[in-house]
Amino acid sequence: MRAYDIIYKKREGERLSAKEIRFLIDGYTRGEIPDYQMSAWAMAVFFQGMDAMETAELTLAMAESGDQVDLSPISGVKVDKHSTGGVGDTTTLVLAPLVSAAGVPVAKMSGRGLGHTGGTIDKLESIPGFKVDLTMEEFIHNVNSIGVAVIGQTGNLTPADKKLYALRDVTATVDSIPLIASSIMSKKIAGGADGIVLDVKTGEGAFMKKLEDSRKLAEAMVEIGREVGRKTIAVITDMNQPLGLAVGNALEVREAITTLKGEGPPDLEELCLTLGANMLLIAGKAKDFTEGYNLLQETLVSGKALEQFGRFISAQGGDPAVIDDTGLLPEAKYQIELKSDRSGYINGIKAREVGLLAMSLGAGRATKEEDIDPAVGIVLNKKYGEEVARGETLAVLHLNDHELVEEARKRLRSSFEIKEKKPEERPFIYEIIS
Amino acid sequence: MRAYDIIYKKREGERLSAKEIRFLIDGYTRGEIPDYQMSAWAMAVFFQGMDAMETAELTLAMAESGDQVDLSPISGVKVDKHSTGGVGDTTTLVLAPLVSAAGVPVAKMSGRGLGHTGGTIDKLESIPGFKVDLTMEEFIHNVNSIGVAVIGQTGNLTPADKKLYALRDVTATVDSIPLIASSIMSKKIAGGADGIVLDVKTGEGAFMKKLEDSRKLAEAMVEIGREVGRKTIAVITDMNQPLGLAVGNALEVREAITTLKGEGPPDLEELCLTLGANMLLIAGKAKDFTEGYNLLQETLVSGKALEQFGRFISAQGGDPAVIDDTGLLPEAKYQIELKSDRSGYINGIKAREVGLLAMSLGAGRATKEEDIDPAVGIVLNKKYGEEVARGETLAVLHLNDHELVEEARKRLRSSFEIKEKKPEERPFIYEIIS
Repeated sequence: MRAYDIIYKKREGERLSAKEIRFLIDGYTRGEIPDYQMSAWAMAVFFQGMDAMETAELTLAMAESGDQVDLSPISGVKVDKHSTGGVGDTTTLVLAPLVSAAGVPVAKMSGRGLGHTGGTIDKLESIPGFKVDLTMEEFIHNVNSIGVAVIGQTGNLTPADKKLYALRDVTATVDSIPLIASSIMSKKIAGGADGIVLDVKTGEGAFMKKLEDSRKLAEAMVEIGREVGRKTIAVITDMNQPLGLAVGNALEVREAITTLKGEGPPDLEELCLTLGANMLLIAGKAKDFTEGYNLLQETLVSGKALEQFGRFISAQGGDPAVIDDTGLLPEAKYQIELKSDRSGYINGIKAREVGLLAMSLGAGRATKEEDIDPAVGIVLNKKYGEEVARGETLAVLHLNDHELVEEARKRLRSSFEIKEKKPEERPFIYEIIS
Repeated sequence: MRAYDIIYKKREGERLSAKEIRFLIDGYTRGEIPDYQMSAWAMAVFFQGMDAMETAELTLAMAESGDQVDLSPISGVKVDKHSTGGVGDTTTLVLAPLVSAAGVPVAKMSGRGLGHTGGTIDKLESIPGFKVDLTMEEFIHNVNSIGVAVIGQTGNLTPADKKLYALRDVTATVDSIPLIASSIMSKKIAGGADGIVLDVKTGEGAFMKKLEDSRKLAEAMVEIGREVGRKTIAVITDMNQPLGLAVGNALEVREAITTLKGEGPPDLEELCLTLGANMLLIAGKAKDFTEGYNLLQETLVSGKALEQFGRFISAQGGDPAVIDDTGLLPEAKYQIELKSDRSGYINGIKAREVGLLAMSLGAGRATKEEDIDPAVGIVLNKKYGEEVARGETLAVLHLNDHELVEEARKRLRSSFEIKEKKPEERPFIYEIIS
């Protein structure tokens, strides 16, 4: 078998066999197949695509290219959740206590933020004392004792995916549905998930700008799940404006607490209930979506989810007092209100631009090596469709460097589109694909 | 400017600017752009193509990536000839003396054989004493004094093309018309040609198997010539059987001599007159194709071309006595006749297989490092469409290793397709594109 022939075959639009895909991925991981052949192959895949079986095989080959997490010491169905990345996405912070409080174990590995999107691990670390680097034994112990644990990625998971993704990133071969789908799913499978709920963002602030592309990606991932025997459900959700109101690490922890108290932004709550209901469904904890949704609503209203958040924080060394006193979370020196210079309706809030602005304030990192500032960020006061009067607060900037104020204010203002006309309503949850 | 953006742009089917193409080729030549970006780009070009202006720009960028031969010390229009590679292609050996005897200077750099196709330099070296490594001064002196010189490639010509071709060869990106066309034309332009006559082979033994693809390649090259101001004419010729009768180095020199005596195989003579007439046309030595053709026929019949071959051999240190006594050329120890095992008509002679057989006998090389045996090869006795009686000689194997006889005989026999029915006539010269 030769890499050349595999590239040629794909270039000609033929189906690659399981053996060929394994040969390619294993050889590439071991460094026997060079980057220049992989990038040519990836470009051929960009043009010719891959069918469901090829994509599933690629997923498995990458999942098995390194360490694989064994979650079997945890009883029950382990359902993971993954988001394709958005701005102000506080979901995991709410979902982890919510779903585990409803009786489904949550054993989650999360990532750090990069670029305009945040990462759960950074957010959790803004809680004083919170530790994300548990050993695998501690991780499993926590899930077994209290039902939940969230840690940073550990071990040498999916080295093939890491290597291939880095290569695609510099060869204009990232945006290929089968390559994106297999990259995401390989990590979830290597992470030991029995089932997977996917939050596929769509819109201007998302990786996939068009609903049609988001749907294709969602379908491809659900199809992989089917092929490899991991029940997978994908929810397509709007990312044309930031999710919830807060963008920034400690600010989002505060928002998660508010949401667990039942007082969160409607879109964030709705998303958490929807994703969570599907997790319950996969775990067999609910017989259908509605039952799962109702069960989670009860869990929220009863205060059980909030209590669980306290246990979760304690178990990982954090100070649970933040729940009652969010003032214990890091706070920025300056809180600058952005007042509206006109009255009208919010016709748009550019999610990507808000994410990049938060990053520039220190909430995120442009490169993997940078440090972040947990306190800074943005809290929106108005969202899409809402009316605003001249002089009313649009949003609040939280920052530690006063020199950034003027530029930040300008950028934040230009993220808001305010018009006289009330815009048409648009869906927040577009589709559920299973 | 970033290589990433250029790959992306081509992937999306957009036109690359001259600046972008220069940036890519110059960066790649200098080692600043890595192989893995170039191979992804080449694959994108495979799918999206390049227009005439892009292809011309790529050609110039590669032509200018290294040394460029200055033929201006030679007066007159310097017309080069190039073949896309066939089996038994003795053309240059006939054309160089023929065209120069007709008054058009021939200053030619040629290559060595690789794989199933031979190379002019190897053939010339089978003439006792013949030197192909003249200095640039000797080369120009010879052309100015006797009108002709043929040398091996010298200096650091088109390093970008060498590097890119080697990369394409291992990434399944060779067979892209704009990439093939620019590769060929860049070498001719760097070689200093004012005009170019191309012999584009088509059929089973050629690089391009289909007439349609050969035509596209021919058109692309003629178009490049137009864009860069080098008059170019392409002749599409048949390579469904070997050209002429001889395949092998000294054997082809002998055939060239026969042809220059006016007694050569009709297809070889026809091809030389056709290509030569176009060279005369470009050089302004003939006002139209027919005048050029007639002039060359006279040059052949009058014996002037044969005389010129003698001068050419002498001037490069070879023994011109080979012209009268071809026995002075290296001869193989064994000459084994292949008799026909049936009577009928020759319905096909697999050119590629005959070329590979000649290579295996020692006439060619599988890798650039191998030595060749000038004496060995194959001489056909029958060609396409001819009748053959049972027991009649189909071809003669010339070899030095008797152990190869049985296998060679088998392979040679299986290259011949003999049927009861006389096959339909087929054209030898398909088209002339200018």
